[in-house]
Amino acid sequence: MSDLSVFSDPRSVAVVGASADPAKWGYWLARGALRGAARRQVHLVNAKGATIEGAASVRSLDELAEAPDLVVLCAPAATVPDVVDQALAMGTRGFLGITAGIDAAHGEPGLERRLAERIRAAGARIVGPNCLGLYDAATDLELAWGTFSPGRLAIISQSGQLGLELAGLAAHEGLGVSRFVSVGNQVDVTAAELLDDLVEHEQTRAVVLYLESFTDARGLVATMARLREAGKPVVVLTVGASEASRAAAQSHTGALTAATDVVRAACRAAGASLVDTPAQAVELAHLLLGGPLPAGRRVAIVSDSGGQGAIAADTFARHALEVPRLSDATRSALAGLLPAAAAVANPVDLAGAGEQDLSTYAKVVDVLAESGEVDAVVLSGYFGCYGADTPELVERELEVVGALAGVVGAQQRPVLVHSMSHDSVAVRSMREQAVPTLHTIDAVARSLELATTMAEDAARTVPGAVAEPTAESGKALDYLAGRERVAAAGVAYPGAAPVRSVDDLRVAAAGLSAPYVLKAGWLEHKTEVGGVAVGLADAAAAEAAYVAMSGRLGEGDYVLEEMDRQSDTVELIVGARRDGSFGPVVLVGLGGVQAELYRDVQVALAPVDDDEARRMIEALRAYPLLDGWRGRPAVDVAAAARVVAAVSRLLADDPDLVECEINPLRVGPEGAVAVDALVLAADHTIETSGDDA
Amino acid sequence: MSDLSVFSDPRSVAVVGASADPAKWGYWLARGALRGAARRQVHLVNAKGATIEGAASVRSLDELAEAPDLVVLCAPAATVPDVVDQALAMGTRGFLGITAGIDAAHGEPGLERRLAERIRAAGARIVGPNCLGLYDAATDLELAWGTFSPGRLAIISQSGQLGLELAGLAAHEGLGVSRFVSVGNQVDVTAAELLDDLVEHEQTRAVVLYLESFTDARGLVATMARLREAGKPVVVLTVGASEASRAAAQSHTGALTAATDVVRAACRAAGASLVDTPAQAVELAHLLLGGPLPAGRRVAIVSDSGGQGAIAADTFARHALEVPRLSDATRSALAGLLPAAAAVANPVDLAGAGEQDLSTYAKVVDVLAESGEVDAVVLSGYFGCYGADTPELVERELEVVGALAGVVGAQQRPVLVHSMSHDSVAVRSMREQAVPTLHTIDAVARSLELATTMAEDAARTVPGAVAEPTAESGKALDYLAGRERVAAAGVAYPGAAPVRSVDDLRVAAAGLSAPYVLKAGWLEHKTEVGGVAVGLADAAAAEAAYVAMSGRLGEGDYVLEEMDRQSDTVELIVGARRDGSFGPVVLVGLGGVQAELYRDVQVALAPVDDDEARRMIEALRAYPLLDGWRGRPAVDVAAAARVVAAVSRLLADDPDLVECEINPLRVGPEGAVAVDALVLAADHTIETSGDDA
Repeated sequence: MSDLSVFSDPRSVAVVGASADPAKWGYWLARGALRGAARRQVHLVNAKGATIEGAASVRSLDELAEAPDLVVLCAPAATVPDVVDQALAMGTRGFLGITAGIDAAHGEPGLERRLAERIRAAGARIVGPNCLGLYDAATDLELAWGTFSPGRLAIISQSGQLGLELAGLAAHEGLGVSRFVSVGNQVDVTAAELLDDLVEHEQTRAVVLYLESFTDARGLVATMARLREAGKPVVVLTVGASEASRAAAQSHTGALTAATDVVRAACRAAGASLVDTPAQAVELAHLLLGGPLPAGRRVAIVSDSGGQGAIAADTFARHALEVPRLSDATRSALAGLLPAAAAVANPVDLAGAGEQDLSTYAKVVDVLAESGEVDAVVLSGYFGCYGADTPELVERELEVVGALAGVVGAQQRPVLVHSMSHDSVAVRSMREQAVPTLHTIDAVARSLELATTMAEDAARTVPGAVAEPTAESGKALDYLAGRERVAAAGVAYPGAAPVRSVDDLRVAAAGLSAPYVLKAGWLEHKTEVGGVAVGLADAAAAEAAYVAMSGRLGEGDYVLEEMDRQSDTVELIVGARRDGSFGPVVLVGLGGVQAELYRDVQVALAPVDDDEARRMIEALRAYPLLDGWRGRPAVDVAAAARVVAAVSRLLADDPDLVECEINPLRVGPEGAVAVDALVLAADHTIETSGDDA
Repeated sequence: MSDLSVFSDPRSVAVVGASADPAKWGYWLARGALRGAARRQVHLVNAKGATIEGAASVRSLDELAEAPDLVVLCAPAATVPDVVDQALAMGTRGFLGITAGIDAAHGEPGLERRLAERIRAAGARIVGPNCLGLYDAATDLELAWGTFSPGRLAIISQSGQLGLELAGLAAHEGLGVSRFVSVGNQVDVTAAELLDDLVEHEQTRAVVLYLESFTDARGLVATMARLREAGKPVVVLTVGASEASRAAAQSHTGALTAATDVVRAACRAAGASLVDTPAQAVELAHLLLGGPLPAGRRVAIVSDSGGQGAIAADTFARHALEVPRLSDATRSALAGLLPAAAAVANPVDLAGAGEQDLSTYAKVVDVLAESGEVDAVVLSGYFGCYGADTPELVERELEVVGALAGVVGAQQRPVLVHSMSHDSVAVRSMREQAVPTLHTIDAVARSLELATTMAEDAARTVPGAVAEPTAESGKALDYLAGRERVAAAGVAYPGAAPVRSVDDLRVAAAGLSAPYVLKAGWLEHKTEVGGVAVGLADAAAAEAAYVAMSGRLGEGDYVLEEMDRQSDTVELIVGARRDGSFGPVVLVGLGGVQAELYRDVQVALAPVDDDEARRMIEALRAYPLLDGWRGRPAVDVAAAARVVAAVSRLLADDPDLVECEINPLRVGPEGAVAVDALVLAADHTIETSGDDA
């Protein structure tokens, strides 16, 4: 990748289209640029030579003695191409394209892209156009609409205003920004490049990325993983969850893997977190910027109000967190710190002990963090308000903040605070000292849940390379051909034989064990048209079924199959398909209507290994059904996981396969047997496969 | 109910235990009381006669010339009983008990309750003790720890600090409080009484109620319904959702109706809303205080950012709201207001039109509100920031706010704003003018979803009176006796006959149609012990099954039953039980593992009528299964609803019934047939019922 340093620390800046009118963008860009005047030369270009915020402007770039390193394009769209050419001729290295509608102003579709080509040909780069600007806290570079406060959170956004909303919410919650880039139309520099650039950006400790479209999506996953490895976790926002944007449903797998599910899977593979809203992103950023992540889901709650402690416990339960019972040893250690009226359960109710002696807060948190019985401690209630309500208590409260920070440092377990104060000296101090402090228990619960998942995902490895597909869509293979493809990957099927006549049927029945299943193998939706007959007790029943079915459906490649006789089975659906951006993905869910009604499925980027496949199965809400439901024997989850991994590899490795689905996979205590296969392959492969069958 | 006016507008107040130390409660109470000194006489009682906030104090109540109307008990616990007696002797009408631990200080369990009896006997009342105080914006009555700003939201809380958190969050979001009462230990005045008192409290327009326990729960439901009728919707917070506090599971119904489900059902019956957290309560209060409620779930989104509009649409979809396609007529009306680049879909993307002409915001919102195609309009993005970022625009932005308020007034459809500004002149003006404005799209979505449900529930009638139960627990009736109880309520069962011998079996088989089912009727968990044999094709098979089963399980009251032969059925679970606080409740869910794994059940206070029962069934996530799933015929939902209503009446009407469950109810296209009955009845009724069978 080329050097993007001109966008983070240019030697000089010219704002072309600078304005003295506070309602105009050119004013904001000029004012911001001038704030960096101590570090770099700032030139303002205004057609009338206006004085702006006390600074003189020139009427044109050619009045400048030397090339500005970075040119901000804020002038009317009609003038932009000339400005670009002029600047390139002078030797400018970078452009920040604010102005929108360049193509339309010139009536020339594609003009922006051609400008970008000229810029690149000259060895320069452009961010935008149609962007809101950029900001870098480390270099006093403020070339954007909006107001930023310096901090450690980087924001890269495909929507400028959404990026501003993120920065505004962060500021409102006491977090500053290290770097902000609105990427605009991305005619040259892409969001992925800018993301990659953050690996080396010292001030950045966490990143929020907003993207509406994904190009080189697997490359983006690798970049997010690199950022994770650099200790800079990435939070992703995207849109499209509400679209009926499911793949045309030739299979359940297509219907069940929405675009957002795939983005989520990609984020998890990279140890990044997909969130739903800007507020969630900022809440999570508090935890990512503020100290260690939780190693598990066990949380201790400390509150000076029984009501707030109970609300916290309920809220955590709704967010897949545990509020475990404490050991007797820990309870007695707590009892030693608290008055008789206090509850030394979890939640710990201080019952006024904090008010009596502020240091109790830190002592109780220390006992809990040191116990090893919880992965995080949450303090919920009045703490953070003492000094604000009673100025005499400011110092004492700050001492306790220091003690809490000391606990975090010593125990390397997160301590979070839900404070009734939105902003106080103590609250600010906590945020600065790696004690994330939020204003609602909702925000604590949501961010703790997300952070826990991120911590769980941190150990994942990004899926390996996948084959470039040869076709975008495919045709369904015959059942027997499909079975063979899947079986070759190591998936068990019952015995089966092709049947095109009564004679075939008799031979097949003699070679297989009853009971049988007869299938009209060439039909994609066999069951719906009566193309499947099950429970055929003997050869005679099979023959009768064949005569009846072929009478109804005509000649074709029928298949006689042994009926799977495992008992105590659970039926799963296992499928893989290619996502347009992220490539092959694999899905597992409970078979039957559950997957569709309750969307109880897990999706991952393919390929997955057996361990990852097992984690997917264990993450199903229906998992208890597989693990000894109501006294039934547990089923062979390991065998099911091997099938999921095999199906994921099929699509990752074979460029001709478009989709593959087993529905159902029958999983019993002794193994997993597939009793269906829908395999879509590129057209050019179909004949061969058909013959193989 | 007795007059509680002494707690809302006392003629005079004495704070006993007033203090000059800002870290003490006695200081806060004294300071607050003095703020009402223009309206009423305020006396401070301090043991040392200190001067507090410039006001003199007396050393004891008996230094006062006449009885203070209301006495605030803030003195040490040891002195409280004497203070009470002294005040009662003088003629005090009301006490506000702040001091906690009175029983413990005296080593006399029950002392607080006895004090309350003395107070009531003297014709006076007490709020608390162990409470945080009360506040009334209408009467300058500020007798509480904490800071309040006046407004229209009443807060009644069983946890003082949680009440303060609610008031603090409300203030942070720009909402004021009309009345605040921390009810403390409720030794006399209860939360329900204080709630009832709000019906006539003019300044209150909405109420948040936090309760940890429910006494006279059906009375509370009636009060909430009265408040709703008075145009003062109630938002309820409670705890216990995370407890393993399910009824000891003799039935699935018990396991599936957690305490919170019942509270939620009670709230919905009263048109109130149960929320999870204080933040949700305050978000919802914005909508309840700010204009009309949405009549349905259809929302139009207007944004000046494509990204924010798309995030809004996704977020709304996650909150059961619809973002419908607009008609061509509405789209062309919008196109007339917007530049060519704008998206005239839903979301409407203004594409800079708002920036060009601020009035576009109001014009677009007007077209949408007037279209009749949506139930609410949400404006998401920069609006509310114009004046804050560019002071020249303050007036123009306020004009648009006025226009938005005009749209709400004219169309009586809610217009909500998600503004990137947390607080600005425009934001405050919108909140004052019935245009609820929130800082995150999350808050808009959550509150809109809750408000929509409240609006749907507004037409409900509170369930009628229910019989007082004769027993808390019961024993299971024989299957045949249970069937008869349920059948008598109008529920269809297959034909059946009792069987105690092979002869009985033959007679029974001759009188019933095959195929049969044989059941060991006296066993509560028949299936688990092999006490059910299904699909018995003829009399011989039935006899063989009887011989085998009775050989295994011994003699007993067996039942031969016709096997239900409906096809295309869906199996439901229908149950009713008595909740310890709220009395009989009824439940419906999908049969099988779904109800338990996915908790796909609906719970309501019993009795329900057929309409309400139908709404419960339609609210199941599994409802599509009943409504023509994948080309199958729709089942007879009306018949299923009649069964739910019948089961609900059984428990509501019969004081001897403890629990009743049909699992499964088989619902087909032509009707609903129950094929099981678990009926628990009070012990004293069992023999009779058994004989009937």
